[in-house]
Amino acid sequence: MEPYRLSGDYLEVLDQRFLPEREVWIKVEDGFEGARVIKEMAIRGAPIIAVFAAYCLYIHSLRKPESIMEAWKALKDSRPTGINLHKVLEEVKGIIESGGGPEDIYKFAKYVEKREREINEKIARYGLLLFERKKRVLTYCNTGSLATVGLGTALGIIKLAHKNGLVEEVYVGETSPYFQGSRLTAYELKLEGIPYKVVPDNHIPFLISRGMVDIAIVGADRITKDFFVFNKIGTLSIALACRKFNVPFVVAAPSTTFDENYFSEDIEVERRKDVPREDYLYFAFDITPPDLVDFIVSDKGIKKLAWPGQ
Amino acid sequence: MEPYRLSGDYLEVLDQRFLPEREVWIKVEDGFEGARVIKEMAIRGAPIIAVFAAYCLYIHSLRKPESIMEAWKALKDSRPTGINLHKVLEEVKGIIESGGGPEDIYKFAKYVEKREREINEKIARYGLLLFERKKRVLTYCNTGSLATVGLGTALGIIKLAHKNGLVEEVYVGETSPYFQGSRLTAYELKLEGIPYKVVPDNHIPFLISRGMVDIAIVGADRITKDFFVFNKIGTLSIALACRKFNVPFVVAAPSTTFDENYFSEDIEVERRKDVPREDYLYFAFDITPPDLVDFIVSDKGIKKLAWPGQ
Repeated sequence: MEPYRLSGDYLEVLDQRFLPEREVWIKVEDGFEGARVIKEMAIRGAPIIAVFAAYCLYIHSLRKPESIMEAWKALKDSRPTGINLHKVLEEVKGIIESGGGPEDIYKFAKYVEKREREINEKIARYGLLLFERKKRVLTYCNTGSLATVGLGTALGIIKLAHKNGLVEEVYVGETSPYFQGSRLTAYELKLEGIPYKVVPDNHIPFLISRGMVDIAIVGADRITKDFFVFNKIGTLSIALACRKFNVPFVVAAPSTTFDENYFSEDIEVERRKDVPREDYLYFAFDITPPDLVDFIVSDKGIKKLAWPGQ
Repeated sequence: MEPYRLSGDYLEVLDQRFLPEREVWIKVEDGFEGARVIKEMAIRGAPIIAVFAAYCLYIHSLRKPESIMEAWKALKDSRPTGINLHKVLEEVKGIIESGGGPEDIYKFAKYVEKREREINEKIARYGLLLFERKKRVLTYCNTGSLATVGLGTALGIIKLAHKNGLVEEVYVGETSPYFQGSRLTAYELKLEGIPYKVVPDNHIPFLISRGMVDIAIVGADRITKDFFVFNKIGTLSIALACRKFNVPFVVAAPSTTFDENYFSEDIEVERRKDVPREDYLYFAFDITPPDLVDFIVSDKGIKKLAWPGQ
């Protein structure tokens, strides 16, 4: 279920906006087109767009080496909140500036891809430690194989816990307005044979308040140095309900999601322009403060923040 | 903008499921049909369905007096959470059982209608006291003229505050899955010329966390004796965010919404069957505990619960 593939000197991207109904592949021939498909959300998920961007620069270096830095800039601007994207782009920049060619960029992209796959396996193994018994799990958005390379982050933990007989049921929020939960996560859960139900996002605090959820596990787009979690808008609501009703709230993310340079006040949240009506307002992310986060699971281990006892 | 009208011996109901795109009126010829349009959400809003049910029993008494109590039962079962509906039905039952005919039921329906209108005016005047200055207001679902008789409850306060120059902007949650916010409340706000923006429900805690909201005002379907607030699912998320980020959370409801007989544990929340896919789960209401509610505004005045200082 890899959502991109390299074919010679171009890339193909599975357009996630049409899933699960239709599998539409978009041809991407340079970095500018790559930036556009990220911006338009044809491909999404913080970890995978980082790897994808590296491949975009590889094909760009084959076809239009003269404009490689413009393409680099376009990719950088395509998702301001995506910290792993920005880190990977900085690494590629180093390769380009030190005279590296297509072969070097290709090798680097391959390396990042493998690294991401291993990171997810580690996250899943650490996350499994939170399943001391069979649990009903809440998750949000899509953090699986469509968003990452390999198993997934939050969903990767859930998949591994399920393989170990430790998942009773999964609840997933629709994740309005793009419905990554009801479209992509539901699709992956069904493929894996994991029992699940989709709920509108506004149902999540209610499920938690009624004792229907044992643990909530979500992904992250960026975790600041002061442990504020930037993730798909709607995450904050889950964290608030978990704290109020004593359910552990867990963030699963690769260590590349950790931002050593910025504190939460410095980052502006993207306002989305693609609203259905003039009178609508869309944002991309919300920010969950650290006192609402119980555990952060990364490839480096489990970090205990607020749990237990406030 | 009255969403029902009496024409001789039948009723017509404005089917709110098609608003704001189309104005479709459904003919209702007896109490069973009335119960069905309530159940199907063609007409909704706790205060208005109570008045509408009284009119349904009037036309039923004209046409099929022999089955009036079966119709009464169908109306009672049409919305288990609607406390004002149940109270009004108990009153009509008294009239029927004491030998009252169509004329008596008609008079009673007229009386309840007038009473509701006056209640809303009082709620709005009390609620206005919470606007000591111009405010950015968050609301949810539809609590206006389409849900009530007259001005509305939460939206009635907002309309009166706007008339007094005290509303800077209104944010309204879409209210998935029926979209009463983006369809009905947005429609009413536009008609009134009140500046507003619609947001997906999952955006609300984020707006509150960013200081974009000065006060949140919502309606209620039922307030138990221990002050648990049953309202459209999604309300709890707003209350949680308001408490966390110190924004007053206000419930506006007629005193008929107060349930003197039940405590929160006794009431089952309706699970909705009209899901779009097999793997979906819908509930109708959530329950906000009293420690998250700052003020309750009713026609009897303002009740201060938790605000300020927990």
